[in-house]
Amino acid sequence: MTDAPFAARGTKDEIEEGSAFAPKFDAAGLIPCIAADADSGEVVMFAWMNADALARTIATGQATYWSRSRQKLWRKGEESGNTQSVVELRTDCDQDIILLKVRTAGDGANCHTGRRSCFYRLLPLGDGSRRLVFDEAQ
Amino acid sequence: MTDAPFAARGTKDEIEEGSAFAPKFDAAGLIPCIAADADSGEVVMFAWMNADALARTIATGQATYWSRSRQKLWRKGEESGNTQSVVELRTDCDQDIILLKVRTAGDGANCHTGRRSCFYRLLPLGDGSRRLVFDEAQ
Repeated sequence: MTDAPFAARGTKDEIEEGSAFAPKFDAAGLIPCIAADADSGEVVMFAWMNADALARTIATGQATYWSRSRQKLWRKGEESGNTQSVVELRTDCDQDIILLKVRTAGDGANCHTGRRSCFYRLLPLGDGSRRLVFDEAQ
Repeated sequence: MTDAPFAARGTKDEIEEGSAFAPKFDAAGLIPCIAADADSGEVVMFAWMNADALARTIATGQATYWSRSRQKLWRKGEESGNTQSVVELRTDCDQDIILLKVRTAGDGANCHTGRRSCFYRLLPLGDGSRRLVFDEAQ
């Protein structure tokens, strides 16, 4: 699965209004990937894919990313058991982002800290404090 | 607003479990930003911020990004009228992603194609076709 034949990038109109899947990878060969919970729609994670990770995700239906820190393919949950089954895969207008809707196995944690979502802190706006507040529901 | 004093990056534990907002910008000085609809939770857009864009977003409550193609700050909707009021701003475990919950003014389009969301096409899984299908609800 080292070759990952996606369509060649076409014209702007073909990319934006066509049906050929022609994902754009950046200079490092990566594309950003957002993972949202398939049931709630909540954004739970963000990671990167290379072409091989994207091809494996499509072929297996299990979310597979590229770990930039470990420089290797990483099937989400391969160690924790919290695998992500891909219910839906979308791309954006210029096809340089991937959006997955996932169902997470195991204890449902998508974050390595054990939380459901990586986005467990928010920055209150308007008070100028610049202090994060924890979302205790996570 | 050219200086944007965010906290210095601390230890891994301080970054992941602390309340100091210490966003990490990449080698190009940018941080990925996901925009989701504040009411439905639906992911509607992805863009990049530099420190100045992030500081302006926090200060004004209006989503402001960095346009990589135009190499300039870009207050979303400044031309179209479809500005994004930020209802909530979150960051992830390692503080290298921003997640905005937004309410979009004007005709509600977040995508430059006029659609509500940039993610208006999906790739059916399991049939090997590699052809995108349009989500006509967008």
